[in-house]
Amino acid sequence: MTEPIHQRILLARRPQAEVSPEDFRLESGPLPQPGEGEVLARTIWLSLDPYMRGRMNEGPSYAAPVPLGGVMQGEGVGEVVASRHPDFAPGDFVRGHGGWQSHFVLPAEKLTKLDPHEAPLGTALGVLGMPGLTAYAGLHAIATPKAGETVVVGAASGAVGAIAGQLARLMGCRVVGVAGGPEKCRHVTDELGFDACLDRKEPDLAARLAAACPDGVDVYVELVGGETLRAVLPLMNVHGRIPVIGTIAWYNLKELPEGPDRTPQLMRAILTKRLRVEGLIVYDHARLEPDFRREVAAHLRAGRLKHREDIVVGLENAPSALIGLLKGRNFGKLLVQVSPDPTR
Amino acid sequence: MTEPIHQRILLARRPQAEVSPEDFRLESGPLPQPGEGEVLARTIWLSLDPYMRGRMNEGPSYAAPVPLGGVMQGEGVGEVVASRHPDFAPGDFVRGHGGWQSHFVLPAEKLTKLDPHEAPLGTALGVLGMPGLTAYAGLHAIATPKAGETVVVGAASGAVGAIAGQLARLMGCRVVGVAGGPEKCRHVTDELGFDACLDRKEPDLAARLAAACPDGVDVYVELVGGETLRAVLPLMNVHGRIPVIGTIAWYNLKELPEGPDRTPQLMRAILTKRLRVEGLIVYDHARLEPDFRREVAAHLRAGRLKHREDIVVGLENAPSALIGLLKGRNFGKLLVQVSPDPTR
Repeated sequence: MTEPIHQRILLARRPQAEVSPEDFRLESGPLPQPGEGEVLARTIWLSLDPYMRGRMNEGPSYAAPVPLGGVMQGEGVGEVVASRHPDFAPGDFVRGHGGWQSHFVLPAEKLTKLDPHEAPLGTALGVLGMPGLTAYAGLHAIATPKAGETVVVGAASGAVGAIAGQLARLMGCRVVGVAGGPEKCRHVTDELGFDACLDRKEPDLAARLAAACPDGVDVYVELVGGETLRAVLPLMNVHGRIPVIGTIAWYNLKELPEGPDRTPQLMRAILTKRLRVEGLIVYDHARLEPDFRREVAAHLRAGRLKHREDIVVGLENAPSALIGLLKGRNFGKLLVQVSPDPTR
Repeated sequence: MTEPIHQRILLARRPQAEVSPEDFRLESGPLPQPGEGEVLARTIWLSLDPYMRGRMNEGPSYAAPVPLGGVMQGEGVGEVVASRHPDFAPGDFVRGHGGWQSHFVLPAEKLTKLDPHEAPLGTALGVLGMPGLTAYAGLHAIATPKAGETVVVGAASGAVGAIAGQLARLMGCRVVGVAGGPEKCRHVTDELGFDACLDRKEPDLAARLAAACPDGVDVYVELVGGETLRAVLPLMNVHGRIPVIGTIAWYNLKELPEGPDRTPQLMRAILTKRLRVEGLIVYDHARLEPDFRREVAAHLRAGRLKHREDIVVGLENAPSALIGLLKGRNFGKLLVQVSPDPTR
C-alpha cells in the first residue's frame, strides 16, 4: 500500500493583472503530522471565493497577503485522519482554513466540527458558511431592507448574491438580480425566485435596470462594481443603502480604468440622495452567526432557500477554477472536490 | 421721503461651469405686500452657502432648482416691517428663506422669531443656524467620534468645517484641518484650536496629511472632495466614518475630471476598511435641533466655540461673493449685509 502523498498549491508569483496558471505551483511531499493539540485532516471540499484574488497581491488589505511560495489560503471541509486533541477523533468532519492542500494540520480551536446529518458537508462552505453569513450580515447589519422595498443584487447567481437576494425576498422585498448570461439569469428567476434578472452582457444595462425598478432602488448589494454600479447609481432612492461586499469586476485591474474620473458622480449621489455606503467583511459580524444559522437552516429545511454548487474535481484544477471564478465562469457556489465525500 | 424700493437678484441664466456675474440680474420694483397670515420683512443678513451652486443647475438634486428668472434662494434674517399674523409685529427679528432680496414676504409659519439679546442676529445663519446644525448632525448622526480618535475636516475655516472641528475637539478628538492658504490655516490652529491645519494649496498634501495623522484617520468630514478626499482616503482607519456634507471642489465641474477613473480606489477603500460613507442634508436632522441649540449655545456663551463671519455689504455684491465662496475666497461664514443691523 502506498503512503498517501501530501499535495499543496503554492503562490508561485504575484499576478500582474489577470491571474494566470503560472502564478501557482503544485508541490508534493510527505504527510504533515499534528503536534500537541492539533488535528490532521484530509481535505474533502475546498471553497474558492473572490476574496482570494486580493490575498495574491502584495500590500495592505484587510488580511495579510499569501507570502510568495506560501500555500494558497482558503477554507475547507475535511475528515479527521489523526488527532492530538481530545475533542476530535478520526472520522470526524471539520471545517477550517486549511488552504489549498490535500491534507491540513490545524490547532483544534481553529476547527468547527460538522454534523453531516444536519446538512450536506459542502453547505458549511456556502449557504451555511462564510458566503451565507456574508449575505445575511449585508442585509441585517447594513441594508436593513423593509418589505416593499426594491433590492438589486449584482452577481446574483454567485454564492453570496444568490443568498442575499433570496433572503431579501423572504423579507418581502422586490428583488432584481444582475448576472452574466441568459442561463444564469433564468436560474436566478426560475430557481431562486428573484422578481427579475438582467444579463449584464447584453447592451443597455442602465435602461433595462431602470425599467425593472420602476420605484427606484432602495438597496444595492454591491458584489461587482464596474458597469453594474454605474447602472444602479442613478436609480438609487433617497436614503438608499449600499453594503459593499465585493467589487469583482475590478479585482484583476492592473491599473485604474480609463477616464473620466467618475468619483464626483459617486460622491454626488451619496450626498444628494443621502446614501449609506458601507464596507462589509464577514469576520466583523461573527456575533450574527447564531441568528444566521438558526434562520437560514430553517429556511433550508423548509425548502424556502435554494443553493447551487459548481463543483470542480481535483486539487490540481483549483487554479483554473479560481481564474474562471474571477471571470464569472462559475455558476453557483464554487467548490473544489479534493477527495471523496463519504457522506454523499 | 422716497418710497423704499424692492430689489431682488434673479437667476438670469444657468451657469455653464463656473458661475459668472452674467448669470444673475438685479431687478427693482415696488414693495410686495403681505397677504393674510403673512409677514413682510426687511432683509438685514443674507446667508451665502455652497449648496446654492446646485440650485442654479437644472436637473434633479435634493431640492428643486431655482427657475430661470426666479429669485435666488437663500436664508436670511430680517426685521418685520408689516405683519398680517398675530404672532409677529413690526420690529420683530425673524429668520426665514427669504431669498436674495431687500425685502421678503413669507407665511408666518415659515419664520423663526429671533431674540437679539440671546445671540447676535448673524449667528442664526451660522454657528446657531443651518451650518452649525449641519456640523452637529455630521458628528452626532454619522461620524460619532470617540475621544482620542483623529478627525480630519476639509474646508476647515468655512462655516461648517470650523464648527465641526471645534465640536470634535470638545469631544476629545485630535482634529486636523485642511484649508486654503496660510492665513486661514493660522486662524484654524490659533483661533479655532485645531491640533493642526494643512494648506491644500501647497504641494504634497497627501504626505503632509499622513505626517499630521500618525494614528490614521477615524473620521473625515467631507466638505470638499477633489484632492483632499484623495489625500485622506489612504489614511482612513478600519471602521472609519465619512459624513459627506459637500464636495465644493467639484461644484463648478462642467464635465467629469480627466481620468483615470478613481472610483475603484474609493470602493476598494470602503470595502477593505469597512468605511461608512454617508450623505448628509441638514433638513433630515431637524430632530437634533433642540440638543444642538442647547449644547452649542452653551459652548458659545462659555467661549469654548469661536466663529468668524466674512461680511460683504450690499445685496448687489451677493453674486460676486457667491463666486468667491465657490473658489474658497471667503474666510469664515459668508454673510451679505443687505441693510443695517439695528442691534449691532
